[in-house]
Amino acid sequence: MISFESDYTEGAHSKILQKLLNTNFEQQPGYGNDCYTLSAKEKIKQICQLPNADVHLLTGGTQTNQIIIDTMLAPYEGVIAAKTGHVASHEAGAIEYTGHKVLTLPHINGKINAEDLQSYLANFYQDANHEHMVFPGMVYISQPTEYGTLYTKEELIQLADTCHNYQIPLFIDGARLGYGLMADDCDHTIADIAQLADVFYIGGTKIGALCGEAVVFTKGNTPKHFVTQIKQHGALLAKGRLLGIQFDTLFTDDLYFSISRHAIECANKVREIVQAKNYPFYIENSTNQIFIIISDDKLAAMKDQLRVSFWEKYDETHTVIRIATSWATTLEAIETLEEIL
Amino acid sequence: MISFESDYTEGAHSKILQKLLNTNFEQQPGYGNDCYTLSAKEKIKQICQLPNADVHLLTGGTQTNQIIIDTMLAPYEGVIAAKTGHVASHEAGAIEYTGHKVLTLPHINGKINAEDLQSYLANFYQDANHEHMVFPGMVYISQPTEYGTLYTKEELIQLADTCHNYQIPLFIDGARLGYGLMADDCDHTIADIAQLADVFYIGGTKIGALCGEAVVFTKGNTPKHFVTQIKQHGALLAKGRLLGIQFDTLFTDDLYFSISRHAIECANKVREIVQAKNYPFYIENSTNQIFIIISDDKLAAMKDQLRVSFWEKYDETHTVIRIATSWATTLEAIETLEEIL
Amino acid sequence: MISFESDYTEGAHSKILQKLLNTNFEQQPGYGNDCYTLSAKEKIKQICQLPNADVHLLTGGTQTNQIIIDTMLAPYEGVIAAKTGHVASHEAGAIEYTGHKVLTLPHINGKINAEDLQSYLANFYQDANHEHMVFPGMVYISQPTEYGTLYTKEELIQLADTCHNYQIPLFIDGARLGYGLMADDCDHTIADIAQLADVFYIGGTKIGALCGEAVVFTKGNTPKHFVTQIKQHGALLAKGRLLGIQFDTLFTDDLYFSISRHAIECANKVREIVQAKNYPFYIENSTNQIFIIISDDKLAAMKDQLRVSFWEKYDETHTVIRIATSWATTLEAIETLEEIL
Amino acid sequence: MISFESDYTEGAHSKILQKLLNTNFEQQPGYGNDCYTLSAKEKIKQICQLPNADVHLLTGGTQTNQIIIDTMLAPYEGVIAAKTGHVASHEAGAIEYTGHKVLTLPHINGKINAEDLQSYLANFYQDANHEHMVFPGMVYISQPTEYGTLYTKEELIQLADTCHNYQIPLFIDGARLGYGLMADDCDHTIADIAQLADVFYIGGTKIGALCGEAVVFTKGNTPKHFVTQIKQHGALLAKGRLLGIQFDTLFTDDLYFSISRHAIECANKVREIVQAKNYPFYIENSTNQIFIIISDDKLAAMKDQLRVSFWEKYDETHTVIRIATSWATTLEAIETLEEIL
Repeated sequence: MISFESDYTEGAHSKILQKLLNTNFEQQPGYGNDCYTLSAKEKIKQICQLPNADVHLLTGGTQTNQIIIDTMLAPYEGVIAAKTGHVASHEAGAIEYTGHKVLTLPHINGKINAEDLQSYLANFYQDANHEHMVFPGMVYISQPTEYGTLYTKEELIQLADTCHNYQIPLFIDGARLGYGLMADDCDHTIADIAQLADVFYIGGTKIGALCGEAVVFTKGNTPKHFVTQIKQHGALLAKGRLLGIQFDTLFTDDLYFSISRHAIECANKVREIVQAKNYPFYIENSTNQIFIIISDDKLAAMKDQLRVSFWEKYDETHTVIRIATSWATTLEAIETLEEIL
Repeated sequence: MISFESDYTEGAHSKILQKLLNTNFEQQPGYGNDCYTLSAKEKIKQICQLPNADVHLLTGGTQTNQIIIDTMLAPYEGVIAAKTGHVASHEAGAIEYTGHKVLTLPHINGKINAEDLQSYLANFYQDANHEHMVFPGMVYISQPTEYGTLYTKEELIQLADTCHNYQIPLFIDGARLGYGLMADDCDHTIADIAQLADVFYIGGTKIGALCGEAVVFTKGNTPKHFVTQIKQHGALLAKGRLLGIQFDTLFTDDLYFSISRHAIECANKVREIVQAKNYPFYIENSTNQIFIIISDDKLAAMKDQLRVSFWEKYDETHTVIRIATSWATTLEAIETLEEIL
Repeated sequence: MISFESDYTEGAHSKILQKLLNTNFEQQPGYGNDCYTLSAKEKIKQICQLPNADVHLLTGGTQTNQIIIDTMLAPYEGVIAAKTGHVASHEAGAIEYTGHKVLTLPHINGKINAEDLQSYLANFYQDANHEHMVFPGMVYISQPTEYGTLYTKEELIQLADTCHNYQIPLFIDGARLGYGLMADDCDHTIADIAQLADVFYIGGTKIGALCGEAVVFTKGNTPKHFVTQIKQHGALLAKGRLLGIQFDTLFTDDLYFSISRHAIECANKVREIVQAKNYPFYIENSTNQIFIIISDDKLAAMKDQLRVSFWEKYDETHTVIRIATSWATTLEAIETLEEIL
Repeated sequence: MISFESDYTEGAHSKILQKLLNTNFEQQPGYGNDCYTLSAKEKIKQICQLPNADVHLLTGGTQTNQIIIDTMLAPYEGVIAAKTGHVASHEAGAIEYTGHKVLTLPHINGKINAEDLQSYLANFYQDANHEHMVFPGMVYISQPTEYGTLYTKEELIQLADTCHNYQIPLFIDGARLGYGLMADDCDHTIADIAQLADVFYIGGTKIGALCGEAVVFTKGNTPKHFVTQIKQHGALLAKGRLLGIQFDTLFTDDLYFSISRHAIECANKVREIVQAKNYPFYIENSTNQIFIIISDDKLAAMKDQLRVSFWEKYDETHTVIRIATSWATTLEAIETLEEIL
C-alpha cells in the first residue's frame, strides 16, 4: 500500500531530526527565547528581504489562521475569503469561535479576484445600513489555494492594492507556500510575497517539518503583546526550540526551497502519467496537488494498493480524487503509482 | 553556566528521538489516527487500569487546561481553583478567553482543601441570588501543585467526594504528574489518580517529551465531538504521530516513571546540599521543585554561573528562588550546583 | 413629511401605555418575577395551545436571536439560515460574536426550502471530513421573511420534518409574526407555529410594544439555567415588569392579532394604490412590507414628503424601496401616500 | 405588605410616563437617531460640563458594564475591581463571557484604595513573567459602591492619577450615581465625576426610569464603531426613543437630582428610625442603601409585613438586611416601616 493522500504522511526531513538530536541536551530558555528560534527568525527575515519584519513560530495551520485573524481584526470586523478558503470551510469554525465572521466571495478555481473584492468593499460602504453589518477587516487568500492553483504576481498586486485602498490588511496563508513558489509557472519569489502581504505564513507542517508555521508580519504591524495573545489562545509552546530548530534547518542552505522543488518535480511526473493514461484533470494547476476524475470502478479496484484523498463525487460513476506529492515522495512510489493507475 | 531554571530546558529523552528517527518515513494517517497514537492510548489506559478511559493527546499545558475546561463546562459555569493555580494566574487569561470565570479558593502551600470547597459550594447554593452568579462547574487542582507540594490520597478522596456530592467533575492538572507520583512520600499511583479524577492529564512537556500532554477522560465523559472541538480551538496537529510516538515511548517499559524518579533523586540530592549549606526552605515539599530563601548578595554573586527561577522577593535583602530538577538533570550539574551554592 | 420607513417609528399601543401608567406604583419583584410577566406567560401558552411551553421575555430581535442560538447550540455547532436571513446579514456579527457560524443556504424570495436543507444535511454527514467542519445544529427561518414573504404550513411541516430527521431544532424568528399570521393568505395559526417550531419568538417591538420579544420553548427544551444565561448575555432587565406589562396587554382581548390585522389592511390598501399607479412590485407578498420599483427621478421628487426604506439599486435609473405599514399606520397617512405616489 | 427590597420595585417617574404618552405617535427614526435621544445627550454633556463628551444610552447595568469593559479593553487585558464589585460577583460571568478576566483587589466597605491599586500595578510590571499573565487594562469602581459607601473626591483623584500613570482608564459604574451625588456628605458633583473618570455611566433603572443607563465617554475615547459593537452585543434598541425620552426627561429641570435627593432624605429618616430603635448598622454610609443587623426572631416576625433584602448571615441568631429607599419611596411607607421595626 502506498499513499498519496496528503503532504503530511511522513515525519520530518532528516536534517531536521538530525539537528534535534545534535542540540538535544543544550539547555535553552523556553517560550521562543532559545537561540534556534532567534536564528530562524533572522534567516526568514533575510530570505524575505525584510530586515524589519517580525517573525513568530506557531504549531499548525488552523491555529495560525485563528490567531492571526483574531489578533489583527477589531472585534466588529470579519475576514473576507473565498467560499473554498480553508478558514471558510475546513477549520471547524475556529474563526467564528474567536468571534469573527468569515465573509465569503465566489471563487474561480479556489481564487478570488480583485474586481469581486473591490465591488464587495464598495457595496459595503455604500450600504446605508452598514453599521448594522460586519465590517470587512482583512482579506485572506491561500497561496497556493486549496485547489492547488496559484495567484500570479499581477493578481496579488491587484488584491493588495484593493486592500490598501480600503486600509485593510492582506493575509496570505502559505501552508504550502514552498510548493507554490517552486512551481514551474510561478512568477514571483518569497520576497514578493513578503512585500505584497501585510502578514503571511510559511508552512512547515506540509513541507518537511513535524509541525510548525512561521508567521511574518511585514509592516511593523504585529498585534500588541502578541506573545501574550499566543499564550491566551493556548498556543505558546514551552519548548519553543522544537519550532526554532525546525525552521532554522529549513532556512539553512535553501532546504525549504529545494525540498519544495522536489515535490513539484514529483508532481510534474505524476501529471505526465495521468495524461498518458488519459485521466482528465478536474482542475489545471502546477503545484503539488493533482485533482483528477476517475471512474468509481477503477477507484474501487485500486483501493488496496493506493491511498488518495476523496475530493467529491463528479457524477454518478466518477469521482474527483486528489493525489498529493511532497518533500518525502520517492521515485519508487511514483513508479508504483504509474503501475496502479 | 548551568541552569536549574525549569524542567523544560532540554529537548526530549533520547529514546523518543530515536523512535522519531526510526519511524520517520512510515506513511501514517493524520490527526491522531496513526498507529503510534493508538498504541500510546492503549498503554495509558492499561497503566491507569481503566480499559474504558478515553485518551487524547494535546500539545501543551495551557492549551490542555483551556480545552478541558471549556469543553466540559456549561456556558454558565466557572472552574474552582486555588488562587495560586496555574489556570488562575499564569495562563494569560486563557480560561476567561473561552468565556469561563476562574473561581478562586484560598490555598495552603498551593493546595485547596475539602472543607473550603464544601463551604464554597454550600454557600453558593444557599445564596438566594445564585442565579445571578457564575455556577461552580468543575474543580481544578494540580498534582503536584505549583509549589511542588502533593495532595495525599486521603485529601484527593475528600475533594473527589465533595465534587461528586455536588455533581461536578474533579480535574487534575498533571503537568508534572510523574514527579509527584515518584516522590518519596507519595501514597498513591496513577491508577488512583485515574480512579479519583473525572479527567486529568499526564504531562509530557516537562517529563521527557518535546511537547505533549495526554488527557484521560475516566468516566465515559468525553465531551461530544471532542476532536472537532480540539480543531475549533486550533489545537489539532496534522501530524498527530509527533505526539503518539512520544507517549508510546514514554509508556513503554515504564520510561515515564523511571525518568520521573531520576528527577526526584536529583531533587533529593539538591535538598541535602541546601540543608547542609543552611539555606532555609521557603516551602517543604518532596517533588522536583525546590524553593529556597537566599540572600540577594549571594544571588548576585552566582548569577553568571547558575540560572534559577526568581520566585518572589522574601524581604528587603532576601529572595525566594526555585531550583528545578528534571529527567535530564545530570550528576555533574548537581555537583556544580553544590560548589556554586 | 410622513414616514413608511419601518414598523418601529411610533411608540407603543395606547393600551400598553395606559397599563404602564395604571400599574406604575405597584411594588413588583424584579427580573421577570412580577405578576404581569407571569400573566403574560400564561396567556401566551394558552394562545399557543401549549400548556407546557416555557416563555421568556427579552428586549429586542438581535438580542433574542443571539441568545436563543448561542444557548441552544453546542459549541461545535452552527445555525443554518437563508443567505438573506437577518442573522446572516444584518446583526453586525452578533451570532459569530458568540462563537457560532451561520451556515447559509440559497433563498427564494427570502425563503429556504426543505430539499436544499435536506441535501445540505445529507452532504454534510456524507463528507468524510465533516469532523473538521462546523456541525449544523439548528435551522433558523423568519416568518414572515425579510422580504415579507410567508412559508405555507406545508413548507413549515417539511422543514420541521427535515430538522427532526436530523435531530436539530427548528427556530422561527417571528419579529413580525403577527403581520404574517394576519395576512390574507396565511394558512396557519400561532398554535401551528408553536407545534412545528422547537423554539420561536413573538415580536413585540414591531407590533405595538416599545420593546420586547417573547421567546417560546415548545418542547421542554429550555436551555439549562436560562435566566442565568440571559444575565450572562447582559440581557436581563431589572424591571422585568416593562416587558411583562406589554405582553400581558398585547395578549389580552387578542390585541396582538387585531393590531396586526390593521397593518395588513393598511398594506392591502397600499398595494391597491401601488398597482393603480403602475409601480411594479419587486417581490409579491401579502404581509406588511411592500417592495416596489420606482424611478430615481420620482424618488428624488418625493424625498421631502415621504420617508421610505432604500432597499437596493434596481438598475441605472430605478431603485427598490420598501414601504412598511404597522399597527400605528393611519388612514390619513395612506391617503397622503396615495397623493405623493 | 410594603417593600424596601430594592430601588427598582416601582415603574418610572410620572413625568417620564407622561412624556412617553405625549410623544407616542410622533414618527421617529430608530436606533438612537430620534430627537429625544439627541436632546438627552446634549443635556447630559451640559450637566457634565463636557461639550466634547460622547454619550450613548443602553438598557441595563450588567449590559452596560459588559459592553464598556469589552469594547475598551484589548483582548489580552482584564479589568481591576474590588472583590465585592458588581462585575466581580453578581453579573453571572458577563465580563468573562466576553473573554476578559476580572482582577480583584481587596475592599474596605466596598471601596478599593489607590495604594493597593498602585502596588498591584507596580508588582505586575515588575514580575518578569507578566507576559504570561492578564494585563490590567482598566479600573472599575462603583460610586456609590455595592455597600452604599462613597469615594471622596480626593480618593477619586488618587485612583484616577494612579490609572493615568499606568495609562489605563478609570471606569465609574454609576448605577446609583444620583443617590451618591445627593448624599449629605458627598463632596463632588457630576462634573467632577466626568472630569475624573475616563468613562462612567449614569444609572436610570434605579433612579426613576423603566430601564436605561447613560454611558459617557469623557475624553474622545469612544471605542471605534461603537454603535456596531452595541448591536453585536445584542444591545441596540430599535426604538431608541424609549431611552431617549427617559433621559431627556430625567435631565430636564434637574429631575434626576431632585428625585435622587428625595431618596436620600427618605434614607436619612430611616437611619434615624433604625438608630432610635437601636438596631446596629452593619456598615456606615450616607446613600440610599441601609445595612442593619437584626435578630432572626424579629426578621421572622415581620416577614409578612415588610420585604427587605437578605444580605448575609451575621451570626447564629442575627442577619444583615438591606433597606433601600428610592425616588418612589413614600412618607407613608417610612411610617409603616417605623411601626414594623
